Amino acid sequence: MEELKQRILAEGRDLGRGILKVDSFINHQIDVQLMVEVGQEMACRFNDAKANKILTAEISGIAPALATGQVLQVPVVYARKTRPVTMTGPVFVEIAPSHTKGRDVFLMVSTEFLGRGDRVLVVDDFLATGATISALVRLVRHAGAELVGIGTVIEKAYEEGRKELEAFGVPIVSLAVVKDVSDGEIRLA
Amino acid sequence: MEELKQRILAEGRDLGRGILKVDSFINHQIDVQLMVEVGQEMACRFNDAKANKILTAEISGIAPALATGQVLQVPVVYARKTRPVTMTGPVFVEIAPSHTKGRDVFLMVSTEFLGRGDRVLVVDDFLATGATISALVRLVRHAGAELVGIGTVIEKAYEEGRKELEAFGVPIVSLAVVKDVSDGEIRLA
Repeated sequence: MEELKQRILAEGRDLGRGILKVDSFINHQIDVQLMVEVGQEMACRFNDAKANKILTAEISGIAPALATGQVLQVPVVYARKTRPVTMTGPVFVEIAPSHTKGRDVFLMVSTEFLGRGDRVLVVDDFLATGATISALVRLVRHAGAELVGIGTVIEKAYEEGRKELEAFGVPIVSLAVVKDVSDGEIRLA
Repeated sequence: MEELKQRILAEGRDLGRGILKVDSFINHQIDVQLMVEVGQEMACRFNDAKANKILTAEISGIAPALATGQVLQVPVVYARKTRPVTMTGPVFVEIAPSHTKGRDVFLMVSTEFLGRGDRVLVVDDFLATGATISALVRLVRHAGAELVGIGTVIEKAYEEGRKELEAFGVPIVSLAVVKDVSDGEIRLA
C-alpha cells in the first residue's frame, strides 16, 4: 500500500528503542480515508480465506478490523483487556506479555462470540514481537474455531514476530513492513 | 434508527442496576453493517454542523466515531485513558468519574490533534450520566476548539445525562433512547 508507506515515512517518528510513533493517522488520530483503504486492501488480500469473523484486540486494532469487516461484511470481535461490567458470562482468556507495557496483558473473548465453525481472520494494527497476535490465535484455537489468516497494518520486521506466527500455517499479510527504525530514520522493506 | 431499536429490544439484556448489555452488536462484537448505518445516520443528522474533526473516547466509542467520520470525511481522534509509550508530547487531560468502573478515568488528547480552529463533533456509544461526554467537551474547550454537536448511539434516559450536556448549547443526538431497564425488560422512548 503505497499511500500507507508514504504516510509512515512522512509522519512516523522514531522514539528510540524501536518504538515507532504513527499516532497522527493510525492510533490516536485516525485518518478515516486511509483506514478505508487499509480495509479494502486487507479484504482484497483475504478474499479467498472465507472468514466469517474478524478478531482483533482493543484498542488500536479496532479501526483496521472494522474497516476490513465492512468490506468483507463479517462481524468484528475485539478481545477485551479488562473485563467490563457487561462481560458477565464465561470467557476465553489468554495472556500476552507486553513489551511496551512491561507487564502481562489479558485478552478475553466471551464464549458467545467465538466457537466451532467460525473461520477467523485475525487483524491488528502492528505486528511487532507477535505476542498479542499469538494470544489472539490461541483464543481462536481455545474456542475450537479455525484461523484462516493474519493481517496487520504495519509490521516491525526488526522485532521478528513473523517467525513465531509462521508456525500457525496461515497467510500473514502486512500492508507496510518497516525494516528498521533508528537514528531518527525509518527504513521500509 | 428503527434497525438499531429492534436490535436493542431483541439482543439487549438487563443486567440489573440500570446496566444494559449490548455486546453482541455494539461493544464486544460489532455488527459492521449496523455500524455503517449508525455512521450514515449520525453524519446525516450533523451534516450542517460542519465539523472538521470527531472526538471520542477509547474503547467503545471508536467504532461509531469511525463510522461517522467515514461519511463526514473528517479525522477521528480518540482520547486515551492510559498513556501509551508513543504519547510523548504534551496532552490535554480531563478526569471523568466512572460509575461502572467505580473510579476516576483520565481522558488524554495530544495537543497536536486538537486546537483552535477545530470544529469538533463528540461521538460516543452511550450517553448515560454524561460524565465521559462532559470530559470530552472540556477537552475540546481546553484546546480552544469549538464544540459543534454531541452524537451518541444509545441514550440511557434514566441516567439523566442529557441535562448536564444541554448546558453546552449544541445539538445532542441519540439514535436510540432507552427510557427504562428493569425486571429484565427494556423500554424504549
